[in-house]
Amino acid sequence: MADLAATLSQADKNLDNSLERLSDLIRIKSISTDPAFSDDCRKAAGWLVGTLEDIGFEAGVRETTGHPMVVAHQAGREGAPHVLFYGHYDVQPVDPLDLWTKDPFSPGVEELTPGRKVITGRGAADDKGQLMTFVEACRAYKETNGTLPLTVTILFEGEEESGSPSLKPFLEANADELKADLAMVCDTGMWDADTPAISVSLRGLTGEEVTIKAANRDLHSGHYGGNAANPIHILTSILGDIHDADGRVTIPNFYDGVHETPDNIKSMWEELGPPKDFLEDIGLSVPSGEKGRTILERCWARPTAEVNGISGGYTGDGFKTVIPAEASAKVSFRLVGDQDPHAIRRNFRAFVEERLPADCSAEFSQHGTSGAIQLPYDAPELADAQKALEDEWEKPAVIIGIGGSIPIVGDFRSMLGMNSLLVGFGLDDDRVHSPNEKYDLRSFHKGIRSWIRIMDALAAGQ
Amino acid sequence: MADLAATLSQADKNLDNSLERLSDLIRIKSISTDPAFSDDCRKAAGWLVGTLEDIGFEAGVRETTGHPMVVAHQAGREGAPHVLFYGHYDVQPVDPLDLWTKDPFSPGVEELTPGRKVITGRGAADDKGQLMTFVEACRAYKETNGTLPLTVTILFEGEEESGSPSLKPFLEANADELKADLAMVCDTGMWDADTPAISVSLRGLTGEEVTIKAANRDLHSGHYGGNAANPIHILTSILGDIHDADGRVTIPNFYDGVHETPDNIKSMWEELGPPKDFLEDIGLSVPSGEKGRTILERCWARPTAEVNGISGGYTGDGFKTVIPAEASAKVSFRLVGDQDPHAIRRNFRAFVEERLPADCSAEFSQHGTSGAIQLPYDAPELADAQKALEDEWEKPAVIIGIGGSIPIVGDFRSMLGMNSLLVGFGLDDDRVHSPNEKYDLRSFHKGIRSWIRIMDALAAGQ
Repeated sequence: MADLAATLSQADKNLDNSLERLSDLIRIKSISTDPAFSDDCRKAAGWLVGTLEDIGFEAGVRETTGHPMVVAHQAGREGAPHVLFYGHYDVQPVDPLDLWTKDPFSPGVEELTPGRKVITGRGAADDKGQLMTFVEACRAYKETNGTLPLTVTILFEGEEESGSPSLKPFLEANADELKADLAMVCDTGMWDADTPAISVSLRGLTGEEVTIKAANRDLHSGHYGGNAANPIHILTSILGDIHDADGRVTIPNFYDGVHETPDNIKSMWEELGPPKDFLEDIGLSVPSGEKGRTILERCWARPTAEVNGISGGYTGDGFKTVIPAEASAKVSFRLVGDQDPHAIRRNFRAFVEERLPADCSAEFSQHGTSGAIQLPYDAPELADAQKALEDEWEKPAVIIGIGGSIPIVGDFRSMLGMNSLLVGFGLDDDRVHSPNEKYDLRSFHKGIRSWIRIMDALAAGQ
Repeated sequence: MADLAATLSQADKNLDNSLERLSDLIRIKSISTDPAFSDDCRKAAGWLVGTLEDIGFEAGVRETTGHPMVVAHQAGREGAPHVLFYGHYDVQPVDPLDLWTKDPFSPGVEELTPGRKVITGRGAADDKGQLMTFVEACRAYKETNGTLPLTVTILFEGEEESGSPSLKPFLEANADELKADLAMVCDTGMWDADTPAISVSLRGLTGEEVTIKAANRDLHSGHYGGNAANPIHILTSILGDIHDADGRVTIPNFYDGVHETPDNIKSMWEELGPPKDFLEDIGLSVPSGEKGRTILERCWARPTAEVNGISGGYTGDGFKTVIPAEASAKVSFRLVGDQDPHAIRRNFRAFVEERLPADCSAEFSQHGTSGAIQLPYDAPELADAQKALEDEWEKPAVIIGIGGSIPIVGDFRSMLGMNSLLVGFGLDDDRVHSPNEKYDLRSFHKGIRSWIRIMDALAAGQ
């Protein structure tokens, strides 16, 4: 049986060295999008392999057509659950460099406000600091107990900031090796500086482009106006019909597979309220959308239909009295629960087709299809992780969702059949992707401790 | 009292010389849009002054900042009505020259089909041939009777094919001189080769651009979708609301000033039916628009609301899941009867404003404002002209409308307070603005005779 208190104490003792190791990693300029830094990316991968080997992982640099992956394995106690931990070692470019107050690749610790220390440098938060919380948790666990509580596979990617072109082929080619009972990802944030959060859902997406066609050419509205079908009218009329007065989507069967959020989760979200200045920051004051739902529920647990682009007729300066031959729109649906992205596409197309008047046709093209991700609210791993985080932060962990999609999480689900537990310690003011990126020392330290507790809880809860 | 039969006979005798004079005018390369032909434009104006003086007009070349106008006056019999005749001496460019089977400026007469002779050359129909029908009518009338039946002012413009930039300033500066009881314009066509037509109405126009604004910047639809107002939705919903299920415009008071077309005119239009292949030519088979109206009524006597352009969000290749900060549309209203184009603009703006949800705003900009033109269906001049045309063509003249606008006719109405009688002898196959333009010799000959009869009838009907 592992000694949790001793493991946490070991992590505390290690902290200065943990920080030194993180600093070593930040010093490597692993900017994935710029070919000038290819060697640095490879260097970062190699550094990670060495670090993982140092704590007992069987680790290797694995080639792709782009920057290499790092894959590492270490068996846990007999019969322990198997987790796949994902992170990325590549970072965003640093321009504009003159806005940095310190060299982005010379990390240091500074006091942001009295008592609040932060680690500075590119990648401090995204994602080097975050992935190192898990690595250092493994180190303390191993040093204290001799064995990890879980069988751990680690996958570190070097192309997350440049579109992950190698990821799907790599998952496909190494599915058997990478498949685990659960994926864990450390690339998200806390709810606020004191409140840990677990992201359990990500919305899926169906993207469609529709073009309505009528006459065989653009027409003069004086000669034909009043008699010739105007594709802009047809398009606006159809799109104007997609929402009812309550903000619900009117496409038949659209809500098939949408489940009501459990009351306890809804209550939690009601208490949380929307993020500070969520609407005010974008110049709005009143939420639009589906009636009778909170902002958080709408963002995390309700599907949407949004027109992302529309065009037709004359759109330049001045005026042209034209009835265009066609008009088109790009429409996307954010999906939740068990909504079938293919069914949504079919139903949308039927919705349009049914509304076409005589002589008019619609052409469709497909842009993006991904199902929603949902770790069941009653999953035992979730309860375990929640308890572990509450023990560490002395405040209940909140269960949240993500309004957009994270491709890797979808790929884990669709290609490897795994759910993901998304726990991260980033804060809203981390300035990821911007100059003067930082990671709170507290996030790093308590992040390490959190992973120790989570691993321990998952092993015990098995 | 004038001798109508003798006047018509004189026109017949003159025909060869009339044709020679028209050919002289066609030979002058008066392409107004190309500065290389400025001298030719001036030459055409001078030629017209000489020709008009030759038949007793007091005529002059009148300077503008562009090509000159020709203005001529001749008093008719004591107390005769006063008409202003308008035409234009400038022509379209001739490119692509290699598609012409003959030199565009070397006019000739050729037999198109057995018995059907046409005058070829640029401007043969538009508008040199047409304006010369009136000039030659005056000549025959003067030669036979010594006096014109009407007091005639002539205005020939040299910039009609290049946007008429000098016309409004010239009308304004010479309003007293140009104002008459009625304007007559010869720049339109027959219904078909055997059926003369009088155009009595032109639709007006109110052009508006509306931009709907919501958030202060473009938003990610994952993060904000479901909560942030989407200006494309608001715009499409408002525009989708502008027509009801019967194709009527729903803007309050939109139909104020729209008068029902008299039954006899409606019956005439029903008998005419739509122009041959009106919809088929543009790839359509079913007319859209207001229910319970014929195609011709919709085009000539009913107002419309058309969206001529729409844009918002991402419209490039591929897909971007953006909720845009704004979306905009260009909307035009074709107006009839006594609809007030300014009231239409105000009512449209109110219609939009009323439908704006919280946090959203609309910005408007104005594009074009012109009232409809309508010569009353019971105007005595109309009955006179109809009778005159029927006598000449041995077929009743049809009363038609024009779906678009002709700026000069609107300017005569708004600046000089005159109605216009639009009678022309062009045919659908005249290839105006295209290579191998022609004017039927029959149009020219019977056109001259038609104006003799119309002038005579207007003088008698006074």
